[in-house]
Amino acid sequence: MEDWTGKILELKETVLEDNDADADRLRGELAETGTYYLNIMSSPGSGKTTCILRLIRRLSSEFAVGVLEADIDGDVDARTVAAAGVPAVQLHTGGMCHLDADMSRQSLREIGSDSLDLVILENVGNLVCPAEFDTGAAANLVILSVPEGDDKPLKYPLMFEKADAVLVNKIDALEAFDFDMERFIANVRLRNTAAPVFPVSGRTGEGFDAAADWLRGRIIAWKEGQHRG
Amino acid sequence: MEDWTGKILELKETVLEDNDADADRLRGELAETGTYYLNIMSSPGSGKTTCILRLIRRLSSEFAVGVLEADIDGDVDARTVAAAGVPAVQLHTGGMCHLDADMSRQSLREIGSDSLDLVILENVGNLVCPAEFDTGAAANLVILSVPEGDDKPLKYPLMFEKADAVLVNKIDALEAFDFDMERFIANVRLRNTAAPVFPVSGRTGEGFDAAADWLRGRIIAWKEGQHRG
Repeated sequence: MEDWTGKILELKETVLEDNDADADRLRGELAETGTYYLNIMSSPGSGKTTCILRLIRRLSSEFAVGVLEADIDGDVDARTVAAAGVPAVQLHTGGMCHLDADMSRQSLREIGSDSLDLVILENVGNLVCPAEFDTGAAANLVILSVPEGDDKPLKYPLMFEKADAVLVNKIDALEAFDFDMERFIANVRLRNTAAPVFPVSGRTGEGFDAAADWLRGRIIAWKEGQHRG
Repeated sequence: MEDWTGKILELKETVLEDNDADADRLRGELAETGTYYLNIMSSPGSGKTTCILRLIRRLSSEFAVGVLEADIDGDVDARTVAAAGVPAVQLHTGGMCHLDADMSRQSLREIGSDSLDLVILENVGNLVCPAEFDTGAAANLVILSVPEGDDKPLKYPLMFEKADAVLVNKIDALEAFDFDMERFIANVRLRNTAAPVFPVSGRTGEGFDAAADWLRGRIIAWKEGQHRG
């Protein structure tokens, strides 16, 4: 992967008075170009990049896809994605723990979102701050991995409240950890009655057909004008 | 654990001009009372609470110990610690992703740190923000768990730069994950040449004798007046 010559974008912090309004404006712009912008949030190390590759493998024959990889530092993830043949831009947040709508806009311009059907943002690994800032995405996908524990929706309620879907990753390791899927789903439901929960394994690929079907349906609905549906 | 009648402290945000100076002041106050204040930071779900209980079990016959459990919401962790017979206060950060020195001071007053030898702070589960704010602790202990991956020091450099010691938890699950301990330590060393790295298992207890020995040495040195040594 040493021949990756991809871009690293150093994001500029913007202090907009009303990020929510700006996020709605960005969603409108993305609706115009038929670009579905998916914001993926999780803890560090829950397997976001692997899950993204599993989803893309199931969707890239139908849709033009790009990936934005946000990190404090480094370019490990963009290299990994680019090595799989997917356009990727590494974003550096300058120490910031989240992306807002304007940082999204800078990033989408850099990757050329106008000609893409699906842009996936791998947000900074963090269950707190990213939930507080609307990125302008059409949907938020939250990933929790089995080793993190089934109690996390109790501790990070806003993150699960903001989720449009939840992936439970590393289910291949269920036997090694005290993780009760029913208890986890019940904990999610305390904050979120609607979001589907997909148990998956980034390692084996199990469960990603269902998750990709959900995403495919959302992209098609978006392109047909049923925004934020 | 339903009979836990412990305290939940709703922290007030303070906007001090110079948190670093305030943190140094707090360290001075804690040196006066001989209280070693240990700040533990990690991702959500890396096993902070279990590690804390393993350390306390090895130190509570020698030292008077208390635990501060910081979370956005909930009281799961304080209940767990209190059930093990250790004084615990649950801190609610009001949505904030970190603690600063003044929030530490409010918390230490609540738990009565003057009469304690060791106060352990379980900081908010987050590898980004807590590293940016000096809590006034004598030392920072960073926990990373095997399922999170050995590349995390590359992505969260400041967290590993600020560490006085690193625990690598869940080593009982090493076989199930692609985690190379030597590569991890090499990645830590890019940012931190001094911090000892202790491989441990919260599940089996392996490795905690060495980690507790390190902490014991630091507490004794602190009480003898070798602050921040």
